[in-house]
Amino acid sequence: MTNAEKALMLHEEWNGKFETAPKMDIRTRDDLALAYTPGVAEPCKVIAKDPEAAYRYTVKSNTIAVVSDGSAVLGLGNIGALAAMPVMEGKAVLFKSFGGVNAVPICLDTQDTEEIIKTVVNIAPAFGGINLEDISAPRCFEIEERLKELLDIPVFHDDQHGTAIVVLAGIINALKVTGKKHEECRVVINGAGSAGIAITKLLLTYGFKHIIMCDKNGILTKGIDGLNWMQASMMEETNLEHKTGTLADALRGADIFVGVSAPNIVTPDMVASMNSDAIIFAMANPVPEIMPDAARAAGARVVGTGRSDFPNQVNNVIAFPGIFKGALEGRATQITEEMKLAAALAIAGLIPDSEVSDTNILPEAFDPRVTDAVSRAVMEHIRK
Amino acid sequence: MTNAEKALMLHEEWNGKFETAPKMDIRTRDDLALAYTPGVAEPCKVIAKDPEAAYRYTVKSNTIAVVSDGSAVLGLGNIGALAAMPVMEGKAVLFKSFGGVNAVPICLDTQDTEEIIKTVVNIAPAFGGINLEDISAPRCFEIEERLKELLDIPVFHDDQHGTAIVVLAGIINALKVTGKKHEECRVVINGAGSAGIAITKLLLTYGFKHIIMCDKNGILTKGIDGLNWMQASMMEETNLEHKTGTLADALRGADIFVGVSAPNIVTPDMVASMNSDAIIFAMANPVPEIMPDAARAAGARVVGTGRSDFPNQVNNVIAFPGIFKGALEGRATQITEEMKLAAALAIAGLIPDSEVSDTNILPEAFDPRVTDAVSRAVMEHIRK
Repeated sequence: MTNAEKALMLHEEWNGKFETAPKMDIRTRDDLALAYTPGVAEPCKVIAKDPEAAYRYTVKSNTIAVVSDGSAVLGLGNIGALAAMPVMEGKAVLFKSFGGVNAVPICLDTQDTEEIIKTVVNIAPAFGGINLEDISAPRCFEIEERLKELLDIPVFHDDQHGTAIVVLAGIINALKVTGKKHEECRVVINGAGSAGIAITKLLLTYGFKHIIMCDKNGILTKGIDGLNWMQASMMEETNLEHKTGTLADALRGADIFVGVSAPNIVTPDMVASMNSDAIIFAMANPVPEIMPDAARAAGARVVGTGRSDFPNQVNNVIAFPGIFKGALEGRATQITEEMKLAAALAIAGLIPDSEVSDTNILPEAFDPRVTDAVSRAVMEHIRK
Repeated sequence: MTNAEKALMLHEEWNGKFETAPKMDIRTRDDLALAYTPGVAEPCKVIAKDPEAAYRYTVKSNTIAVVSDGSAVLGLGNIGALAAMPVMEGKAVLFKSFGGVNAVPICLDTQDTEEIIKTVVNIAPAFGGINLEDISAPRCFEIEERLKELLDIPVFHDDQHGTAIVVLAGIINALKVTGKKHEECRVVINGAGSAGIAITKLLLTYGFKHIIMCDKNGILTKGIDGLNWMQASMMEETNLEHKTGTLADALRGADIFVGVSAPNIVTPDMVASMNSDAIIFAMANPVPEIMPDAARAAGARVVGTGRSDFPNQVNNVIAFPGIFKGALEGRATQITEEMKLAAALAIAGLIPDSEVSDTNILPEAFDPRVTDAVSRAVMEHIRK
């Protein structure tokens, strides 16, 4: 049986990857009178007077919604709400397994930005946080920004920020390996969707100065046709020299390549044209932009991918469970830029400097220290 | 410690009355590759081609949303979404404990009919059914009807239909005790909100001919001021003699009183004015329309209340878990009138004719046969 067949068989066996588990037995009239009527009226009355009490008495304290419209699911594209369910359930299971956070998949039967925003606002009372997932760019940017303004609970688009946090963590340690200074590095981000843009933004926040974004048509420059509003706004902070050309042109003399794009689009020649001690994050999945052995043969020093069968796996599961665990435990109302930076530093810090190496820049997904390190970092940056 | 204090303390201890429980361990990269990427893509692809497969591969098969806008919560009134959460969580816990059905509370930050409808439609893909709860009349009627038209999953407003099913079950057995024929009985329903109207409708469907509805201003008659659209439409099938007057006037010569109204509004004199072998369902909670001992002293034969400390408790938990268990297992797309009648008959049938008595017309909430009897009745009436 192939792994694909096994996965399908298991999904049928599970018939839904989680269930709800009451925290109490309901076996007697007394049980009923305490967990339900008439006893349940007591916490209702307290919350009606003091909304904050919802965090003491209800699942809002530790439950988030994993919200998707099914418009950009894995590499499968716009497969819609129903077909996105297995992914959102999987994500919900990871939130619980890695972070102890209850998560409920909410797959939306609309791909209209305004309706998505309104729907999420309407269901927000039951949840302590909103994890957006697999919503296509550029709608995802507006949806996230607007929800952050409208809601008093954390909103986090994992495809953007989870990826960006882990990439930054990996780059921080890769810089230690190579001895490069981040403010001097020339960085090329290939892929100008949600992940590429979020990575670019977080690297800028961290202090990188020289970033060029590319998409399948080559270098993005201010004023060219076809940029969406978010890409256009990124042109104010990237490619300040107004370079034009292909990905190959961009990579010549670059220090860092970050790909969230397509298989096999980086050649050994391109890697060879980069600066010495080049750092490559080739995260197209399952086939990276360039295979690690080819990249290293062409002169790259540190190579990360999205795959678990190579060293330096960039896996969002290192970040998102701890992000929400910390945000919920600390009652954060937002996931701020400071928290994302702190999370990246905490992840990077789990590899002692003495152990950082070409093939050891990121902790493993199953490293039991990861979630706590991330959640502590988040909690330390909650403004009260 | 009073029960109220104990309930509050327990709610704080629980800090949310349920959690999510993954059905598999995620301990290795292989686990991750099967429950999440890349394996999860397989069920996604199958569902994208065949939406029905969502019932094989996802939680939709056995998960419902318990939806409220917090506008009519218990006896507390319009306390809003957040304060309604403990009740909706409690309901979710009962669905699981009594019916094995996963249920998720969705409390809505809107009380606008159109927005509620749109929001529920938008989140429906993740759920196999929608249980509406504690939404005020007459909005609840429109919301339920419209959602039934728009969705291909069962929609059920428990305050209406759960109550109606259990009342009808109790009446069926009370008629056995008294030897009365339902089509000859004069029935007075006091309370013309969601429960009162749903009870009236189900009794009409069952074959009752002579029903008068009352509210706090007395008998409802065609053409009077202040009727909402649903009450007005009920005047086409009730009070066909166009009686007017007070509740006391309505009860004179009546066989059955059903109260979903207010404490202590039925006097012994009113009961004494009813036909012999009167049947009383005094379901105001916690203080009934008339106390059972007073009603019996005044001549009533069978008395039911909403309370567990008197015989003949009318408790919705007898109905709703089995309703959704059957609907989900049988893949019903609607909860039909036939299913409701069948459920009432199944509940009534759990008391053998030889055991039916003044004080034994309804099974207990914890009778282990109830949920299966109701779910079987529902499944037998699914039209394929």
